[in-house]
Amino acid sequence: MEELKKEIRKAVEDVRRTNPMAPSITNTVTINFVANTQLAVGGSAAMIYLPDEADAMARMAKSFYINVGTMFPIYEETFSQLAKTLKETSIPWVLDPVAVGIGQLREASLLKFKEAPPKIIRGNASEIIALCGLWGLEGGGEGSNVRGVDAQDQVEEAKEAAISLAKFTGGAVAVSGPVDLVTDGKRVARSYGGSHYLEKITGAGCSLGGVCAVYATCASPFVAALTATAIYNLAGKRAEERVEGPGSFQVEFINALYTASPEDVSNNKLEVEVLL
Amino acid sequence: MEELKKEIRKAVEDVRRTNPMAPSITNTVTINFVANTQLAVGGSAAMIYLPDEADAMARMAKSFYINVGTMFPIYEETFSQLAKTLKETSIPWVLDPVAVGIGQLREASLLKFKEAPPKIIRGNASEIIALCGLWGLEGGGEGSNVRGVDAQDQVEEAKEAAISLAKFTGGAVAVSGPVDLVTDGKRVARSYGGSHYLEKITGAGCSLGGVCAVYATCASPFVAALTATAIYNLAGKRAEERVEGPGSFQVEFINALYTASPEDVSNNKLEVEVLL
Amino acid sequence: MEELKKEIRKAVEDVRRTNPMAPSITNTVTINFVANTQLAVGGSAAMIYLPDEADAMARMAKSFYINVGTMFPIYEETFSQLAKTLKETSIPWVLDPVAVGIGQLREASLLKFKEAPPKIIRGNASEIIALCGLWGLEGGGEGSNVRGVDAQDQVEEAKEAAISLAKFTGGAVAVSGPVDLVTDGKRVARSYGGSHYLEKITGAGCSLGGVCAVYATCASPFVAALTATAIYNLAGKRAEERVEGPGSFQVEFINALYTASPEDVSNNKLEVEVLL
Repeated sequence: MEELKKEIRKAVEDVRRTNPMAPSITNTVTINFVANTQLAVGGSAAMIYLPDEADAMARMAKSFYINVGTMFPIYEETFSQLAKTLKETSIPWVLDPVAVGIGQLREASLLKFKEAPPKIIRGNASEIIALCGLWGLEGGGEGSNVRGVDAQDQVEEAKEAAISLAKFTGGAVAVSGPVDLVTDGKRVARSYGGSHYLEKITGAGCSLGGVCAVYATCASPFVAALTATAIYNLAGKRAEERVEGPGSFQVEFINALYTASPEDVSNNKLEVEVLL
Repeated sequence: MEELKKEIRKAVEDVRRTNPMAPSITNTVTINFVANTQLAVGGSAAMIYLPDEADAMARMAKSFYINVGTMFPIYEETFSQLAKTLKETSIPWVLDPVAVGIGQLREASLLKFKEAPPKIIRGNASEIIALCGLWGLEGGGEGSNVRGVDAQDQVEEAKEAAISLAKFTGGAVAVSGPVDLVTDGKRVARSYGGSHYLEKITGAGCSLGGVCAVYATCASPFVAALTATAIYNLAGKRAEERVEGPGSFQVEFINALYTASPEDVSNNKLEVEVLL
Repeated sequence: MEELKKEIRKAVEDVRRTNPMAPSITNTVTINFVANTQLAVGGSAAMIYLPDEADAMARMAKSFYINVGTMFPIYEETFSQLAKTLKETSIPWVLDPVAVGIGQLREASLLKFKEAPPKIIRGNASEIIALCGLWGLEGGGEGSNVRGVDAQDQVEEAKEAAISLAKFTGGAVAVSGPVDLVTDGKRVARSYGGSHYLEKITGAGCSLGGVCAVYATCASPFVAALTATAIYNLAGKRAEERVEGPGSFQVEFINALYTASPEDVSNNKLEVEVLL
């Protein structure tokens, strides 16, 4: 546990020191919030849509973030290209399978990503279960239980699916909810804190994925996902104490990401269960 | 009037209790603000672009929001599909005819929507007059008097067009301005409050349309449009008292939407004129 | 110098009095922030994607803003159309060559704009050097030194490229950095102030381009670029004094743009070097 805390602290510090870029293809709803959270933790952001630009950025970067929240027609080509490039470069990349189950291109894209698997998958419980099902892995749901972007399942109900996905990708899976679950298939960590306001603003989940990608430039997938989750839980808790509504929560949340010390992030309440 | 106030109060409460989803196709400029206002009043948001996703979401939802502020090529297909789906499901949907008169696809799309008419139309005075004209209804303007997204006409000048559109759709029309006008073709309500800052931020109108769609999941079009307008006027007034500029106005406005009590919304100044 | 200050003061006042519209094609990451800054200084915003809408807006407006931060396939047509329209109408337009060097369509578009040159170019040092190189002008860099959206060069290293571009366009070039450089090819002005937080939020540069376009409706390119730069430096400085992080910086920055007096903007520290 102390080793893990040390790695979390180091991830926070390394990102602040090196200002790493984590390019994204992400949805238009929360794209600004994603970029601002990536900058607030010390990273750099760049968003693209076109196949050749995605290829160029993936070759320049140490990680990549794909969030399928809003699909455009060009993504058919862009995601085909990216799947190839990401497989070739084997940089760690982060997938947020938003609204898996809605639309043919989204489903086809998510299936394609199985062949160049992400090192971090970040989603709510319903999305994790549905992606696990779509990929034909144990613990996956049949059909979608996703209502647009909202989870209809509890975090712990997605535990088996998350472990299954982590074993398949060889990376980590983060399931967001009141208590966040992060697993690498061998350990299941639970991260505490956050705020009820995180459900009252759009983009809390999307931006967590983007911040995972920032930490993935400097840390292992499991540590990156844990660090991102921990700083989110810490910042959410701190922001909630200062605000009267979701408008100012957004503002204070970004401030709290920016001001969180490496020690405080690593000391945010965390429990680790070792799987047998 | 007491009956109307009761229905407004109920709409505010029902949305907070049931957290209804109102999916949108909306412009990229204010898409984040639309989602955050929908969440602030207690609803849920989901934005899409593709035809089959629009179809899927329209079949899952109890209302829908279409804002034509920024047009993409794919909308030719998406709006064709949606016009069919919305006609078939006959869920109440909300149209914001932003910048009607600019561009062929926008005009063609708005003409197509005449065949599957929205139950709520929300616009500024110039947009309401221009849409009424485009649809060949009495009270409509010849040609466009729209300057991009800004109104060049006064709210009261759009009264006839609003009534005409409401009679045609069988729903409600909300004309935004210093004093908002909402009509169902039989009554004309005027809602007071708001803030001059609402014109100094982008998305006040767009997000009002999105919030109308949220209330339309639980209330009649007229009550939904009135409730959305009332909570906007109340929140605008309250936010203005606390801020020194449009930056903090955005923040406090979201807070005020979130904290407004059903009683306060229903008691926001309202006058109703019965048409003979 | 006094003459210049008077012109800056007048630009601030004229925009507040006339509320001019400056339409944009701009990236989806910071589109909301661009619009809100344009409104905060007293202008009006409208964003479009399609060729015929771009043509229509360019014909209605007194200036135009093109930011190539996020490229869409339709831009091949839209930018072809716009290059023609902007040449024909010869309204002053502003170019932000974000991430020049990444992607074929971006490069082809930026080359096309050489034929209908912008009256203001706004970029960071690396982008200015790279654009100058792409256009084959003296002082330009060979190949790109752009890392996504971040500058890898210092402002003063872009001085020659900026002068070269300004001479070619007959307009002004603004290089953003800790000390901003603005030149019309005959004079080099340096504008002081700003805040380190401007690098910790996304959109500071993009929105500066949008605000340049607003002032370009009322002032010469050099004065417009100087006024926009000055109000940014002033607002950045003032906002920084009031905040604890980048979240509230965004809010206070918009407030400060809104409340800055014409006198304060014209008195913001400025040095002018006359080129021989």
